[in-house]
Amino acid sequence: MIDELRREVCRLHAELVRYNLVAWTAGNVSGRVPGEDLFVIKPSGVSYDDLTPESIVVCDLDGNLVEGDLSPSSDTAAHAYVYRHMPEVNGVVHTHSTYASAWAARGEAIPCVLTAMADEFGGEIPLGPFALIGNDDIGKGIVATLTGHRSRAVLMQNHGVFTIGESPKAAVKAAVMCEDVARTVHVARQLGEPLPIAQGDIDRLYDRYQNVYGQRSHL
Amino acid sequence: MIDELRREVCRLHAELVRYNLVAWTAGNVSGRVPGEDLFVIKPSGVSYDDLTPESIVVCDLDGNLVEGDLSPSSDTAAHAYVYRHMPEVNGVVHTHSTYASAWAARGEAIPCVLTAMADEFGGEIPLGPFALIGNDDIGKGIVATLTGHRSRAVLMQNHGVFTIGESPKAAVKAAVMCEDVARTVHVARQLGEPLPIAQGDIDRLYDRYQNVYGQRSHL
Amino acid sequence: MIDELRREVCRLHAELVRYNLVAWTAGNVSGRVPGEDLFVIKPSGVSYDDLTPESIVVCDLDGNLVEGDLSPSSDTAAHAYVYRHMPEVNGVVHTHSTYASAWAARGEAIPCVLTAMADEFGGEIPLGPFALIGNDDIGKGIVATLTGHRSRAVLMQNHGVFTIGESPKAAVKAAVMCEDVARTVHVARQLGEPLPIAQGDIDRLYDRYQNVYGQRSHL
Amino acid sequence: MIDELRREVCRLHAELVRYNLVAWTAGNVSGRVPGEDLFVIKPSGVSYDDLTPESIVVCDLDGNLVEGDLSPSSDTAAHAYVYRHMPEVNGVVHTHSTYASAWAARGEAIPCVLTAMADEFGGEIPLGPFALIGNDDIGKGIVATLTGHRSRAVLMQNHGVFTIGESPKAAVKAAVMCEDVARTVHVARQLGEPLPIAQGDIDRLYDRYQNVYGQRSHL
Repeated sequence: MIDELRREVCRLHAELVRYNLVAWTAGNVSGRVPGEDLFVIKPSGVSYDDLTPESIVVCDLDGNLVEGDLSPSSDTAAHAYVYRHMPEVNGVVHTHSTYASAWAARGEAIPCVLTAMADEFGGEIPLGPFALIGNDDIGKGIVATLTGHRSRAVLMQNHGVFTIGESPKAAVKAAVMCEDVARTVHVARQLGEPLPIAQGDIDRLYDRYQNVYGQRSHL
Repeated sequence: MIDELRREVCRLHAELVRYNLVAWTAGNVSGRVPGEDLFVIKPSGVSYDDLTPESIVVCDLDGNLVEGDLSPSSDTAAHAYVYRHMPEVNGVVHTHSTYASAWAARGEAIPCVLTAMADEFGGEIPLGPFALIGNDDIGKGIVATLTGHRSRAVLMQNHGVFTIGESPKAAVKAAVMCEDVARTVHVARQLGEPLPIAQGDIDRLYDRYQNVYGQRSHL
Repeated sequence: MIDELRREVCRLHAELVRYNLVAWTAGNVSGRVPGEDLFVIKPSGVSYDDLTPESIVVCDLDGNLVEGDLSPSSDTAAHAYVYRHMPEVNGVVHTHSTYASAWAARGEAIPCVLTAMADEFGGEIPLGPFALIGNDDIGKGIVATLTGHRSRAVLMQNHGVFTIGESPKAAVKAAVMCEDVARTVHVARQLGEPLPIAQGDIDRLYDRYQNVYGQRSHL
Repeated sequence: MIDELRREVCRLHAELVRYNLVAWTAGNVSGRVPGEDLFVIKPSGVSYDDLTPESIVVCDLDGNLVEGDLSPSSDTAAHAYVYRHMPEVNGVVHTHSTYASAWAARGEAIPCVLTAMADEFGGEIPLGPFALIGNDDIGKGIVATLTGHRSRAVLMQNHGVFTIGESPKAAVKAAVMCEDVARTVHVARQLGEPLPIAQGDIDRLYDRYQNVYGQRSHL
């Protein structure tokens, strides 16, 4: 089971590359091991070309290395904090994708002016605090911002994006869609103000997408 | 015949990917079955990598699933409405391509300031209404906007693009060209006002392109 | 010899695709047949995927089809006019590449604010007139603008780019570099005014690049 | 050993292509031969498709060709000057990547408003002087700007980027990350002012990244 999860998490990093969400080694995917206080995550500073299922490391929920020959991602503490405090989350993704990070650099949430944003995020994509790496501050910022929020993506100020999901694949989907809408809303605002969508319409779109879309297994 | 159409519609989704018109599963192509009150369309929430001709589903013109193991695209009702009300249309495409969706988010038509726009669209690319998914409102907005209009593409407000064509391939071409001109006119306007093209010149270009260009089988 | 030229011109279209200079079928390369009043050019409306050396057609310098099963590019008259009036030109390329076409839509020449522009174009990339397809107006505009000008690229107003070269490959290089500098200067100007380069420095850079760069066979 | 270095430097050019840092032949990587007053570098005007380890040329630290059939890159004098004056540098990269060159065209350093910039560059990416090719002016500008500076990248005014590293791979990583942050900060500034990061936080991030990140062999 843990080997299957390693294969899946390894494979999902290729989606970060395909959608141009990452440069060099700057982005990572993790997945919770079902039924255990463990998760698997990318090793630190390893090229996406060189990732193999065997190179994916296993950590406990304090972020300590449990299995693997390489050091875990330098973002491991943030992933671990999310898994400790959000039991419904089984996948976490971190990127510095260009447009989302640009909103984060200005310290602005992305307003919900696209039906695709209402579908996927249920409203704006919120801004989290500025936090330094090295302790639990980033993890705390993610959990504080996303708890009770519809959005599965948070823009960490001056930093980048963290997304969460019921599965690693759902978290990767949120990272892909976050950059997609970050770019479209940016482009829209370059030449004027996007038209707002009424809150009632956002609610209706979000409710429908969460309950009707796809083949009932898309998360 | 229906199997050949499924192969064609499956294959055309790869063009949406190639031209970066779609993220994750957000975009679909359909094609009318010649001589029957049926069309084929992408199944809902399926990755473009995983699409096969067999996975393409068949619907009747009310959007009901007639053949196939998967649920049809969540945009099926809009495609069905177009086929019911525009008998000359044999292909429909829907995307959230970045630049076209940005014009749609501001609620602006794309002005015709490029000879390639005059060729392909015969003038501006018009704006359709804001409409929620779940009934015929999107389909009505597409048909009301494009009926009697030269453009084969409509920007649905705060949403994305729908294009139509004499064939699925022609509708895909319109989606590709719509994003291409949406981007070029956006970039032009970032640094000033594009020069207008006189209406008489737009008319001459449109007439020539529709009647002279290509090998007489490009639609 | 003509077959070798067809293979070369066929192959060079792949460079237009690789550098994202063309959408669908909107761009073409031609090459003069050495020692004969003929040139080879892309057939009209054919996908770049489907181009083969055999599909490349042969025309005389009035643009009439001399050999080939398909109609020549709808831009053939402009290519022919250039070959008739600029005997030193052996290759012509036409694209609607995004950033160059955006400058053309505003009717602005691209100012020389990059050493790479001074190297390759010897100064600004000039603007040509608005001209309709269907007679010699486009060809006349290209020749009038580029004759006596260092630049091997011209922005045709509201339209796109034509480039010329001592060979088809040199004309393709000019098309690639034209879009590259059009994009960089656009991006620079989005956030302020680029610094000018002194005319004497432009002259020195141009002179050096034309005479020193490469392996003496790069054109 | 020199053959292994040639293979590595040849291979690293593919990273410039993969990350869209170069158009046509405009960009080059070099690497110092360990223990000798020599370095290897791309030949001038050769396509990245055609680069082979054998085509990579060997030069002495005055930039004279020592081994190889082709002329060395026209930027060889700048590389040689860096190797002569910065003994800790074992790799040099030069590109005209779009966003970095746009900052260079305006003559602006890139401000440090992203944690990834603090990590990798330790603060702003500085501006070097305008300098013509043909003598040691470019090399002098690089060395004068980067000596005593944390950044391993310099924006040469109206020109492009030079990056240095403990290895050719480290210099390529700096070139990739330079363009990545140049783009993100550009995009951020298009819609307002990015928030500053306090100098103490920049220092902490830089210190941590240089000493903790990766598998201790990422340079």
